[in-house]
Amino acid sequence: MTVSFNYTNALPFLKETELEYLSEFVEVAHNRLHHKTGPGSDFLGWVDWPLHYDKSELTRIKHAAQNIRKHSDALIVIGIGGSYLGARAAIEALSHTFHNQLGQQTAVYFAGQNISPTYITHLLELLEGKDISINVISKSGTTTEPAIAFRIFRDYMETKYGKEEAKKRIFATTDRSKGALKSLADQEGYETFVIPDDIGGRYSVLTAVGLLPIAVAGLDIDQMMEGATAASYKYNNIDLSTNECYQYAAVRHALYQKGKDIELLVNYEPSLHFVSEWWKQLFGESEGKDQKGLYPASVNFSTDLHSMGQYVQEGRRNLIETVILVKKPRVDLVLESHTQDLDGLNYLAGQTMDEVNKKAFQGTVMAHLDGGVPNLLLELEELNEYNFGELVYFFQKACAVSGYLLGVNPFDQPGVEEYKKNMFALLGKPGFESEISELEKALVR
Amino acid sequence: MTVSFNYTNALPFLKETELEYLSEFVEVAHNRLHHKTGPGSDFLGWVDWPLHYDKSELTRIKHAAQNIRKHSDALIVIGIGGSYLGARAAIEALSHTFHNQLGQQTAVYFAGQNISPTYITHLLELLEGKDISINVISKSGTTTEPAIAFRIFRDYMETKYGKEEAKKRIFATTDRSKGALKSLADQEGYETFVIPDDIGGRYSVLTAVGLLPIAVAGLDIDQMMEGATAASYKYNNIDLSTNECYQYAAVRHALYQKGKDIELLVNYEPSLHFVSEWWKQLFGESEGKDQKGLYPASVNFSTDLHSMGQYVQEGRRNLIETVILVKKPRVDLVLESHTQDLDGLNYLAGQTMDEVNKKAFQGTVMAHLDGGVPNLLLELEELNEYNFGELVYFFQKACAVSGYLLGVNPFDQPGVEEYKKNMFALLGKPGFESEISELEKALVR
Repeated sequence: MTVSFNYTNALPFLKETELEYLSEFVEVAHNRLHHKTGPGSDFLGWVDWPLHYDKSELTRIKHAAQNIRKHSDALIVIGIGGSYLGARAAIEALSHTFHNQLGQQTAVYFAGQNISPTYITHLLELLEGKDISINVISKSGTTTEPAIAFRIFRDYMETKYGKEEAKKRIFATTDRSKGALKSLADQEGYETFVIPDDIGGRYSVLTAVGLLPIAVAGLDIDQMMEGATAASYKYNNIDLSTNECYQYAAVRHALYQKGKDIELLVNYEPSLHFVSEWWKQLFGESEGKDQKGLYPASVNFSTDLHSMGQYVQEGRRNLIETVILVKKPRVDLVLESHTQDLDGLNYLAGQTMDEVNKKAFQGTVMAHLDGGVPNLLLELEELNEYNFGELVYFFQKACAVSGYLLGVNPFDQPGVEEYKKNMFALLGKPGFESEISELEKALVR
Repeated sequence: MTVSFNYTNALPFLKETELEYLSEFVEVAHNRLHHKTGPGSDFLGWVDWPLHYDKSELTRIKHAAQNIRKHSDALIVIGIGGSYLGARAAIEALSHTFHNQLGQQTAVYFAGQNISPTYITHLLELLEGKDISINVISKSGTTTEPAIAFRIFRDYMETKYGKEEAKKRIFATTDRSKGALKSLADQEGYETFVIPDDIGGRYSVLTAVGLLPIAVAGLDIDQMMEGATAASYKYNNIDLSTNECYQYAAVRHALYQKGKDIELLVNYEPSLHFVSEWWKQLFGESEGKDQKGLYPASVNFSTDLHSMGQYVQEGRRNLIETVILVKKPRVDLVLESHTQDLDGLNYLAGQTMDEVNKKAFQGTVMAHLDGGVPNLLLELEELNEYNFGELVYFFQKACAVSGYLLGVNPFDQPGVEEYKKNMFALLGKPGFESEISELEKALVR
């Protein structure tokens, strides 16, 4: 087993029959996913993606990545939401902690994930004197944040390299046939990669959206796809009593039904921080609708045991913790004995740092259980590309099942448009003239 | 006004009398703080700290910082919780976004804030060939995470520089007179700085705990203390109707009483991310006890409008948003017109990026208000040291008042010990033998 889930430490909060009673509902959800009969069924491309993805495009991705790695000190990935978090999660989780600072290989920076002039100015300052390439990722090409960043970087590239050379350094991941970015790419001759029509942003990390930046970071995307493929077989099993992916969905649903309405994704390796950010989009955007859904939050332990630990131990008792634990550390250190033992740490001499980290984990689970916080556990044998692929698929499928159990369409995101409508009206975007008078009334109010 | 608070966009969720009815309770809290009559009154040193702090120590801090900046490529700050988050929040908020990568001044890295052998190994790899200094920050010197990191770095320094030179490069911020770190520092002759007895970790950023690393990052700590001083006058006013700091405390309390139990600290500048992490410790650790307290969470907008935005707009209606808005950006960019308008952005030409960012803010507040999320607003005239000092004091005092209104001791953290007890027992620490047999029973269960 490379990724495994267990809910032993949630059992004190569940009656034996609770999951049993949910199993037929899980079967309904399973069938909706595999027979495309549920709400949002136009967005189920991810279910069999690891089996049916375009192998020739994967080859092109690897080729482009090699090319970028050869000619660029840095790749700037321009995207937001699902076109940002998946690649960032993989790269931070699996690369050297200071990968962008070692100068040993092509650095990967992100832009277009905010509207801060400070951020983009500072990024441009950092890039001075460096050779760069761009991967702009947008289905439509008109999403405000990445579109602004891409305008800035396109001008920058054309000034720096001239129009011809710039074209070779810009890679567009976008719709197969339509949209502003696709039109521009065709016109300019950028190499393009496809965002499939039937895979939504938050489900897209294993498409070109995530894979090109991940490959540029030097990671093995073949292994990642193999892990996802293995997961797609492993979790294609209608039986709740043996499908750990569905067990995660069912347990968190059962706990939500009894008032546990915040789920904390917990890790003990700081490099997993952005896996939690990716997970927050996946679950928050899939389930947070119709005035319901577990609120997805995250903590990095043991760091945050010294900040949020007090709340988790003794605050409101509406929390669930789901721990991602990496069994085998990437590197380890043996703790030494000191002749003087002023800090009282000599009792640890001969143990490894990872052993201490694992005891912190065990001690924390027990303390939080005593405090009334159900604990779910997702164990990764080690932190590598294969297991990352498996983990992604595990969460994606669990999220879909969980959303169906909750009675929502797990694949839409109607609420994301609300702020955009207002923003467009306030910015004077053509076509939003009718909204502005209403907004002005609201502003005066 | 350099920092100002308003709750106009919470008014639709509050009856006019609600705050009025709270004002006498706020007076009680105010008096507890200023007359030291409430629970936790041994930890009120921060209230008048900006007026009474040791000026000669501030001079020593600036001198040490200058010395470190002269002789070191990097400072490693070893600490966790309150000995980590405050300095990190200030440095990330106020420095260049890529300050550690520009090579123009002494970089600041953090260690001892986790037990990851990968993190510390990678940090040591990054530091190869660089000249470094250490600032170890711990009241006792025996907190596991920083104590482990300090053992590793002390050995590293003595091997690299020899014992004599290492001593000059190690700075200890610790108790004035007792504890393991103080003893070691005295014995070895490290320069030491004081963690006051009457200021808890989460309230310590404006003491040497935060100020030395902040000064090494090249920031103006005099300005920071001046901002805090101004705030200590500004918010020393018992009257709720005019004290914005108390208004923040009272409004969030009133909203909590009606079921809003998650507060999101929101920013529109990514450099404020760690201000939110610091704030989460401040409020989570102060209020999350006795099975109560608002759960403190955070989002970075507009980034997270594309991940958590759906949940905020349409998920469970138990959210409050508190926005930190920086009025004047540090730098700005004018958006250009393009001859071709494929991405449809030409309507923005001539506007600045910050203007777009502000419209995103306005559009979002209105959308979330319509969605049923009360919005509080904290405006900073600009992002600088003075305003950071004022902001820190604003939050610290608001948190204390809010905690008293909630009926807790805002200055203790009994729950933080639970996991430590278990961990020590599991690690075989002398003195925890009795706990281990109980834990083993629990593990078998």
